[in-house]
Amino acid sequence: MRINRAAIIGSGTIGRGWIPLFARAGIEVRVHDIDPASVETAIAAAAATLRDLQAFGLVEDADRAIELIRPAASLAGALEGAEFIQESVPEKVATKRAVLAQLDGAAEAEAIVSSSCSSLDPAEIFEGVANPRRCIVTHPFNPPHLMPLVEVLPGPGTDEEVVTRTSALMKELGQVPVVIRKFVFGYVANRLQAAVLDEAMSLVGDGVISPADLDLCITQALGRRWAFMGPFETADLNADEGVAGYSARYRESYEAIGADLGVARPWGEDALRQVIAARRRIVPLEGLQEKREWRDLLLMEMIANPIGDRGIRPLTQKEKRS
Amino acid sequence: MRINRAAIIGSGTIGRGWIPLFARAGIEVRVHDIDPASVETAIAAAAATLRDLQAFGLVEDADRAIELIRPAASLAGALEGAEFIQESVPEKVATKRAVLAQLDGAAEAEAIVSSSCSSLDPAEIFEGVANPRRCIVTHPFNPPHLMPLVEVLPGPGTDEEVVTRTSALMKELGQVPVVIRKFVFGYVANRLQAAVLDEAMSLVGDGVISPADLDLCITQALGRRWAFMGPFETADLNADEGVAGYSARYRESYEAIGADLGVARPWGEDALRQVIAARRRIVPLEGLQEKREWRDLLLMEMIANPIGDRGIRPLTQKEKRS
Repeated sequence: MRINRAAIIGSGTIGRGWIPLFARAGIEVRVHDIDPASVETAIAAAAATLRDLQAFGLVEDADRAIELIRPAASLAGALEGAEFIQESVPEKVATKRAVLAQLDGAAEAEAIVSSSCSSLDPAEIFEGVANPRRCIVTHPFNPPHLMPLVEVLPGPGTDEEVVTRTSALMKELGQVPVVIRKFVFGYVANRLQAAVLDEAMSLVGDGVISPADLDLCITQALGRRWAFMGPFETADLNADEGVAGYSARYRESYEAIGADLGVARPWGEDALRQVIAARRRIVPLEGLQEKREWRDLLLMEMIANPIGDRGIRPLTQKEKRS
Repeated sequence: MRINRAAIIGSGTIGRGWIPLFARAGIEVRVHDIDPASVETAIAAAAATLRDLQAFGLVEDADRAIELIRPAASLAGALEGAEFIQESVPEKVATKRAVLAQLDGAAEAEAIVSSSCSSLDPAEIFEGVANPRRCIVTHPFNPPHLMPLVEVLPGPGTDEEVVTRTSALMKELGQVPVVIRKFVFGYVANRLQAAVLDEAMSLVGDGVISPADLDLCITQALGRRWAFMGPFETADLNADEGVAGYSARYRESYEAIGADLGVARPWGEDALRQVIAARRRIVPLEGLQEKREWRDLLLMEMIANPIGDRGIRPLTQKEKRS
């Protein structure tokens, strides 16, 4: 899907994350917010991100991309000629409903109206729109230039073609779309994150393992595989007959562990106290910002120089022996 | 903990995985199995691994390390002078009990008796040993030269000093030990893996997402953080007041998602069928071996050239603008 102009409505954390993605793809992007000062801040942040991306070789000409970003004083000015509208107002059903109805009413006839949500049911927020067929939910991860995943959720009335075109556009923006066909609480990625974090809290609360050691269980084994293979691919490569063989061998264990997990248990006060104390021993609060910059650099490095994209190849027998 | 000689008892998949770790640390390692042919195969596999490690700059002199590996025809010959015994016989309570009692009876007075288990309760398998104070469980991940994590589980009678010395030895071997203080079904890493895989199966079975898209939810967001940060560190960096602030903001959502997870549900036939079909479309069974070699190369690459250890640093403002 090739478009020339997009509109971002709402320029808070989520809205401003979208801006550099459109601009680096060569798409003119108009940014509108009920607070004009927020638009200025958002555009400045997007420009800084584009310069970071250029420094890592991920954008050719940041200045040219920055020129494509325009503030829009009025909603009508933002929507004029926009082929894709990315709504990014606060995550409240009433707010979303009101804004989406307004956007759907004012947008160009062929435009797609996309809502940035991380938890709401598309059926609920699109209830009041006149043209549900062009409305869709896209859930980015923050910040999106470091986190390629976008969860795409059609509502009950969304055209299949809008799902296809939105997914194609997300790819043009450099993102990786996945389609969520049925609303579930937390969507998918946050459910998987909750599965891990809830069990982690439960294990610490039960005195099974220390918080620092729990983190090592991820980084020193599971996480280094999950950086480039999902859980199904991991299982598929771990048995002779692929995932069918893996299931024959381990399915019962997985079901039994599943039944024993503490995921639905509340985050105990004691567990939380232990995790907080452990983390503050590792990094004091005033060191967190530096640590965040470290994290973002490593994520950028993984995009600029992906694992497996460095020309490595199997060694020949001769090389092995030399 | 500096030792000169170790014994590996049992040379199947797990036993043979331990051999190169001891040898590359400069420790003489004697390998015994009731099947002498298995010992020969294991030593050849260990030698190949050491040459691979050398090719990636992770072992200086593979040949010197290989010289430290000796087959032992008798159990007594393996145990003589061994300061650390790594039992790696099949994972059955009766087998483990019998072999561990025998090893404990014949080992040097000061030796540590370590059992490779992935699921058994240390209290059960050490029930019959005369000296429970020196007995401990160590759970490696396969293959251990690519997966640094080792779960260390003391039994009810294990000396704290043995926990400390075993953990120190694991570090000398180049591994990353974590201590599991209380037996839980699946230990820790496999519980976290089950939390993810069980929920993944449940989501596919419920028609929420396709298997290929589910894998992308991990590799394109969660997994790339988990390659270098555990779930607690991830949460800690994601809120202004660290994990305390994160909890104040998201705890309720995590508990609610936890209560909604499908982790205890059986792996539905339909879900499994979908996952198998999706994987076979991506890689036919006959392509799996090549894919495994790809996986192992990427894991090796992550060890040889870890993320964040490539001299990257924050860009200066000037560089950002240049």
